[in-house]
Amino acid sequence: MISALEEVIGRIVPADEQAILRAGDRLNSLTKPPGSLGRLEALAVRLAGISGVEQPSYGKRTVVVMAADHGVCSEGVSAFPQEVTVQMAHNFLSGGAAVNVLARQGGAEVKLVDIGIGGDLSHPELIDRKVRRGTCNMAQGPAMSREEALRAILAGVNVAEEAVKSGTEILITGEMGIGNTTASAAVLCALEGIPAETAVGRGTGIDDERLRHKIAVVERALQINTPDPDDAIDVLAKVGGLEIAGLAGLILGAAAARVPVVLDGFISGAAALAAKALAPESIHYMIASHVSGEQGHKLMLERLGLEALLDLGLRLGEGTGGALCLHLIEAVCRIMREMATFESAGVSGAESR
Amino acid sequence: MISALEEVIGRIVPADEQAILRAGDRLNSLTKPPGSLGRLEALAVRLAGISGVEQPSYGKRTVVVMAADHGVCSEGVSAFPQEVTVQMAHNFLSGGAAVNVLARQGGAEVKLVDIGIGGDLSHPELIDRKVRRGTCNMAQGPAMSREEALRAILAGVNVAEEAVKSGTEILITGEMGIGNTTASAAVLCALEGIPAETAVGRGTGIDDERLRHKIAVVERALQINTPDPDDAIDVLAKVGGLEIAGLAGLILGAAAARVPVVLDGFISGAAALAAKALAPESIHYMIASHVSGEQGHKLMLERLGLEALLDLGLRLGEGTGGALCLHLIEAVCRIMREMATFESAGVSGAESR
Repeated sequence: MISALEEVIGRIVPADEQAILRAGDRLNSLTKPPGSLGRLEALAVRLAGISGVEQPSYGKRTVVVMAADHGVCSEGVSAFPQEVTVQMAHNFLSGGAAVNVLARQGGAEVKLVDIGIGGDLSHPELIDRKVRRGTCNMAQGPAMSREEALRAILAGVNVAEEAVKSGTEILITGEMGIGNTTASAAVLCALEGIPAETAVGRGTGIDDERLRHKIAVVERALQINTPDPDDAIDVLAKVGGLEIAGLAGLILGAAAARVPVVLDGFISGAAALAAKALAPESIHYMIASHVSGEQGHKLMLERLGLEALLDLGLRLGEGTGGALCLHLIEAVCRIMREMATFESAGVSGAESR
Repeated sequence: MISALEEVIGRIVPADEQAILRAGDRLNSLTKPPGSLGRLEALAVRLAGISGVEQPSYGKRTVVVMAADHGVCSEGVSAFPQEVTVQMAHNFLSGGAAVNVLARQGGAEVKLVDIGIGGDLSHPELIDRKVRRGTCNMAQGPAMSREEALRAILAGVNVAEEAVKSGTEILITGEMGIGNTTASAAVLCALEGIPAETAVGRGTGIDDERLRHKIAVVERALQINTPDPDDAIDVLAKVGGLEIAGLAGLILGAAAARVPVVLDGFISGAAALAAKALAPESIHYMIASHVSGEQGHKLMLERLGLEALLDLGLRLGEGTGGALCLHLIEAVCRIMREMATFESAGVSGAESR
């Protein structure tokens, strides 16, 4: 299995420098002061580097929602009961969750992947990649075995590959799993050497008392499991989650296929940190959609070296921020294709002094 | 004329408190942790207050681009020559400017209003409300007379009324006018008692030397004209611009018609400050789309008491940020209409402890 992962990582190449230069030239030829579209111009350049063309377009768009359960929930780290993971899975499948609404608006389909839900689910639209029924309680031992973590990563790679094979041109990371901000915070701590009190946030909305408890749980998980910061698979296995490992694989699969992958919030960010640790070049294929209201996400993005496009205080997950950001990506594509140039419109440029 | 303006201002009523409460209740019934959609939830509540219904929708959307020239350009305050105002007007009319591209994406039409372009323009799509051919050089005397400023404001009111009459349900402010960041900075200084060096920015992209000169020009304009900070019409006349006055009127007209008005960047912000000074209740109808890269805009939004939705370093004007923000407004409308409730989806709520 490790050789299958190495093969994928080996296919990830740097961004296309020529396309980046051409995109910069095109931006400066359009009827606007140079640089005046701010971070949309940086996004245009980034997309050109990923897609190898200066005027990319993204037809089929897919939000992949990886769902899994977390044994650490028995420690009482979330405001919501664990059964909500299954209930929300049904909500995704019937199109009523926030990510369904925003994906429809953004012209994207939502694919739900059961990579480790605790209960049993059956639905024609569900992608079944269940590695195991939820993780173990990481506050008492490893969340899963190394082999299970690897299987979850490869499942994510496979989901990306299947999506690309069926025409997907841009992927968006999404997730559902009560307890997964706890696991994501632990991954951030383990990979980046950050104290739990900095990494742990309120998730779906816990009070001060439960927040202190959640910090203590993460500290305990790190102490008991001693994950190796230089081994992302070890970190994912010991203090991660099945959807976090799956999303790390999805990101790697997207990068290997030269498809941009839009990161949602905190859980997606933990997966991105793992993907970057496994394959540093994969970072060029990631687009940070938003900085979430979850404490630790800003720091996570700093460690990734990514600047988020939106800052709306979202803390819902699911892929909602990623779906919302598709609009900005579409805007950039249209600007590159549809705007007049100084020459075509007969507009004078800036005066030289 | 002043009585016509007073009549419009008299029709501006506070936001609908009942609709605001209903919107909050609906948000808390949807399948998501309370408050987890961050500032989108605040936007939902604001739109409900404006439109009087908790599930609003905005069919016809209109970006009004007010174009005018500025006598102060003869002081050399811009990186671009003044002829660009007319050239860009043609670009708007043929659909090749950035705002055209982003408005098409956002399902909005662009209406170009000649409220004071220096040259002559003729086009079937152009809305001719020319008050005069550009302003005078405010560094040597008043930009225009009080009567002209009032005419420009009422022209803006009229454009809003006509748009609403023909079915527009949401208005977006846009503008074009080489030199108008200079005038907008002067309006900010005059109305809010802010020093020129804080208010003046680089506009389309001037160097340090020209920035110092631009600051000195604004200081001179304020010194020579001594606009009355308690009289917004006096400020607009002496150190404003025809498109700034026109947009102030557009905002007042929108508020009087209970139609949300999306503010673009720095020039729109100067118009909003004037509108707020003339009719404090009009602020409830304004939505700040983005905080621009232009120095002084952040402070302007603080003085307006508005929080911007996007922060992308845009400094293009035209209405580009406003058009881009339509997506977030549409997202909010869809969330209110399409998301499942905890009850309808059979999802458990947060546990009480």
